[in-house]
Amino acid sequence: MDAGEVAGLIGLAEQLADAAGVETLRHFRSPDLRADSKETGRFDPVTLADRASEAAMRALLAAHRPQDGILGEEEEAVAGTSGLTWILDPIDGTRAFICGAPTWGILIGLDAGAGPVLGIIDQPFTGERFLAAGARAWWRRGAETRVLATRACDGLAGATLLSTFPEIGTAGERAGFEAVRDRVRMTRYGLDCMGYALLAMGQADLVIEAGLAPYDVAAPIAVIAAAGGIVTDWRGGPAHHGGRVIAAGDARVHADALALLRDVG
Amino acid sequence: MDAGEVAGLIGLAEQLADAAGVETLRHFRSPDLRADSKETGRFDPVTLADRASEAAMRALLAAHRPQDGILGEEEEAVAGTSGLTWILDPIDGTRAFICGAPTWGILIGLDAGAGPVLGIIDQPFTGERFLAAGARAWWRRGAETRVLATRACDGLAGATLLSTFPEIGTAGERAGFEAVRDRVRMTRYGLDCMGYALLAMGQADLVIEAGLAPYDVAAPIAVIAAAGGIVTDWRGGPAHHGGRVIAAGDARVHADALALLRDVG
Repeated sequence: MDAGEVAGLIGLAEQLADAAGVETLRHFRSPDLRADSKETGRFDPVTLADRASEAAMRALLAAHRPQDGILGEEEEAVAGTSGLTWILDPIDGTRAFICGAPTWGILIGLDAGAGPVLGIIDQPFTGERFLAAGARAWWRRGAETRVLATRACDGLAGATLLSTFPEIGTAGERAGFEAVRDRVRMTRYGLDCMGYALLAMGQADLVIEAGLAPYDVAAPIAVIAAAGGIVTDWRGGPAHHGGRVIAAGDARVHADALALLRDVG
Repeated sequence: MDAGEVAGLIGLAEQLADAAGVETLRHFRSPDLRADSKETGRFDPVTLADRASEAAMRALLAAHRPQDGILGEEEEAVAGTSGLTWILDPIDGTRAFICGAPTWGILIGLDAGAGPVLGIIDQPFTGERFLAAGARAWWRRGAETRVLATRACDGLAGATLLSTFPEIGTAGERAGFEAVRDRVRMTRYGLDCMGYALLAMGQADLVIEAGLAPYDVAAPIAVIAAAGGIVTDWRGGPAHHGGRVIAAGDARVHADALALLRDVG
């Protein structure tokens, strides 16, 4: 698909984000939201918020783009006929959501067959939206807008590394992660998808995670690539299938991290 | 001082928070904000924001409460004659600030000699303010307001634990922290003062930290105590001098954590 078509679809993607924002904020910080509720078998507020958020997005797609495929966290995949697939994570960062921290987000990606070409990372509580359509990436909050661009960083020694939690993946994956962590200037945890968003904004240099699903990475890949960064798996290949992911704002930091992670078994 | 006097001072404390918010947001996410700038010797944006934020608060105190003492992170302590001391942290969570994450805050406490009697935890980017005056604690964001109350939690097995980073304190402190961490349902890092704020809001059950300064804990102690929670050091004594801190929303969780931390050398 051409750049004009991609640009045309960003308006619809924003409608999806708006609808998901309403559904998630209805439950965010609700008094009955408990960390253990996922395990009791009843429909807890997180599950309710997740499902309502995805259902609202799917309803809009059914109305406006019935020919497109859908891959989402909560419901079955829908096969499309257009060659385009919408990739939806109704709440990325469930644990942040449960704790009331504003670092979770709604992720919307559009894959044209070879990876994401459009993406939104939306945080409805703070009102921040990180967007990418083709080669253009920008941030918006109310009337404020800013072009997204990753920052320069010449190697690990000067890098800020972000990740969701220190207990990353398998023992081997954890050892690989720690090898990088021990060489960077600063590591911060607990950011979920906001880590990718802040990297695209030039506030950090590196995000490393493992065990991701395709819907965790589609939108971040689109936003970071359009902001001038690079996202691959731990061997330098495509990352849009999920699994082990390195995102970097500067190719030099990416190469340094890859050298330490490439041989993780 | 009586409850009426405390209540009368919350208006001034809010003026301080407003002024500090303006100064910090001026530098938050500025393009030249780098993780390494604190170490280069020049006045980096974090230092500038920290100093301007504290100076703005001190100017208001000099104008309105010259008889009170001041203890702040950035400037020398001021001895007062009133028996009241304002305790100021112009940016709690410098690392979050540097990464662009909205989990840092401005902390304002007022100590009447035996610990904090008034406190504000303010996050100017999200527009959230957590306040306490005497026995009353509340949250405000724009036109929204909510009474703050900690939630019930009958022990570590059901608890959500928040802390700033896994590399907590000394080796002994870290082992103590990990003993608690291994028994709770969920642990989240990276929240800085927002961890205390979310605990006061009933979104989490436990915050454990070490190596704190008095200005890190004064406002959180006021807010959590007024919300029905408990804050002590790791031996159950007063926490307002800083150091090792346990904050809990329910006395049962507090007792469980204390049992594991009390004997840390």
